[in-house]
Amino acid sequence: MIQLQKYSDALLEHLDATVALKEPVQLYEPIKYILTLGGKRIRPLLTLMTADFFSADFKKAMNAALAVELFHNFSLIHDDIMDDAPLRRGKVTVHEKWDINTGILSGDAMLILAYQLFEEYEPQMFQQLAKLFSKTALEVCEGQQYDVDFETRDDVTIPEYIKMIEYKTAVLIGAAMQMGAIVAGASSSCEQGIYDFGKYLGIAFQLQDDYLDAFGNPETFGKQVGGDIITNKKTFLYLTALKNSTVSEAEILSNHFKSAPENPSEKIEIVKQMFQKTGAATATENEIEYYTNKAISVLNLIKISEEKKNELKEFANWLMKRKV
Amino acid sequence: MIQLQKYSDALLEHLDATVALKEPVQLYEPIKYILTLGGKRIRPLLTLMTADFFSADFKKAMNAALAVELFHNFSLIHDDIMDDAPLRRGKVTVHEKWDINTGILSGDAMLILAYQLFEEYEPQMFQQLAKLFSKTALEVCEGQQYDVDFETRDDVTIPEYIKMIEYKTAVLIGAAMQMGAIVAGASSSCEQGIYDFGKYLGIAFQLQDDYLDAFGNPETFGKQVGGDIITNKKTFLYLTALKNSTVSEAEILSNHFKSAPENPSEKIEIVKQMFQKTGAATATENEIEYYTNKAISVLNLIKISEEKKNELKEFANWLMKRKV
Repeated sequence: MIQLQKYSDALLEHLDATVALKEPVQLYEPIKYILTLGGKRIRPLLTLMTADFFSADFKKAMNAALAVELFHNFSLIHDDIMDDAPLRRGKVTVHEKWDINTGILSGDAMLILAYQLFEEYEPQMFQQLAKLFSKTALEVCEGQQYDVDFETRDDVTIPEYIKMIEYKTAVLIGAAMQMGAIVAGASSSCEQGIYDFGKYLGIAFQLQDDYLDAFGNPETFGKQVGGDIITNKKTFLYLTALKNSTVSEAEILSNHFKSAPENPSEKIEIVKQMFQKTGAATATENEIEYYTNKAISVLNLIKISEEKKNELKEFANWLMKRKV
Repeated sequence: MIQLQKYSDALLEHLDATVALKEPVQLYEPIKYILTLGGKRIRPLLTLMTADFFSADFKKAMNAALAVELFHNFSLIHDDIMDDAPLRRGKVTVHEKWDINTGILSGDAMLILAYQLFEEYEPQMFQQLAKLFSKTALEVCEGQQYDVDFETRDDVTIPEYIKMIEYKTAVLIGAAMQMGAIVAGASSSCEQGIYDFGKYLGIAFQLQDDYLDAFGNPETFGKQVGGDIITNKKTFLYLTALKNSTVSEAEILSNHFKSAPENPSEKIEIVKQMFQKTGAATATENEIEYYTNKAISVLNLIKISEEKKNELKEFANWLMKRKV
């Protein structure tokens, strides 16, 4: 398996050195808080790993990696306000610990700080990184908007859902890896290839998240099992179940997705059974495999050693077999 | 007087062509809305004017000018959420017309769009512009944070207040002008000079705003006269009045600044009288003149024709004599 520990240690060290607590404290304290809450930090680690794989000193990619992490956490702070979420990574969210205004302003500052991290690169590379970053960041905003729009729409299609998770989640994983390639000076076809690898993996990753939300083991899955069902989220599972249902089944399912019972355990059970009976559970597993394989197949276009390709394949398969 | 009309017409045309209404509409509609609300658009016009003064085709500075305007409007949307403001430029604010979540997300997208506007410049210039932009944007966030902090602090000093308005308002005016100089390829001492000119003018501009808020003519001043007094804002007028007061006067004044009477006209009258009696009104006029002169004096460091310098001086004096 790929050894992520060396990247992780170096990243943490860099994070501590870079994110200083300065004046006005009320602005910078929440930034330090969310960045040190933990989390898997999968995105910046992918940046460092990719730089390494394209034969650069991975430390050269440190600022780009940190920019990705700052952006991701900026989006979490603002999303948590929008979703009125009390907890993040098991700890109280920024707008709950402080207030909404602090969450808005500290988030804004983080987005700007992310751009500043690219400034150490020479102009050509700076522009390449900042361009990719802006394009991706805007897509993430668009993805978030689609996600919000879907809450009140009854006619969301499966392709629309895939596009939403592509924008909201997958493009940042693609961009995180592409930044590693940019810093390593990889060719533009390699850049594109590794971006696509990350993007497809990101779609598979999110679908896996949706699947585990319903069928994960409560003892190992980090979040509340059934959370998406409780909040009536129109995931791939739900949309597929609806599509595969008879008219009367579809009515039962969509009525459940308009309800908010005080004790949701019965609703969760019924909906999970429908996800299985309609074949939606199996279809989701197949879709995860489809995007994982799509990711692996684009590796053929990338000029790195077979050994490294195999490591990336292993990584993809490991990520998709995760239970947490 | 400087003819701003030609810049204004070109800017509006560029704005219409650039800010397209695309999918998801819910994200881009509020952006179009606030950008077409009107306003003086003083910052982007200063960018264009400065490029012109340093002998460049001002149209080359169009994207930088628009980036400044996007950033300014991003900060207005988020500030209006924080201040719970119902109106902006006499129209309903974004978060009131839509909702807070829309305001947060559309604001975020605007900040990113502002960075994207620099992409048309070649890498060296791109990096220069983006660096200045990030530094300035972060200072604006810090200024906003200080402004929020001051609301609940009783020991705000006059230098702290000046620093707050420098960050929250003045640096963006300085940066707007410096961007015009960057695009025109001016020397770095000219860049620095025009930045300082804009910054000092920005401080004077904000002090003038504070002054007019209390002593402006209700018939010509755009906002509600006495608005800062009603909301107990610790402006230069208030802090100076407090400093110049006897202990018992200071107590009366600070008690007024803890009250929120239903009919504020008596409070406004008493406070305005205290502003005058303590010499705070005169001190503010002097401070405005001080910063205006400071702005004008740095013009000596800039290599442009005497004729253009005179135009900038006239502009500074005109801005400071404004009644609206």
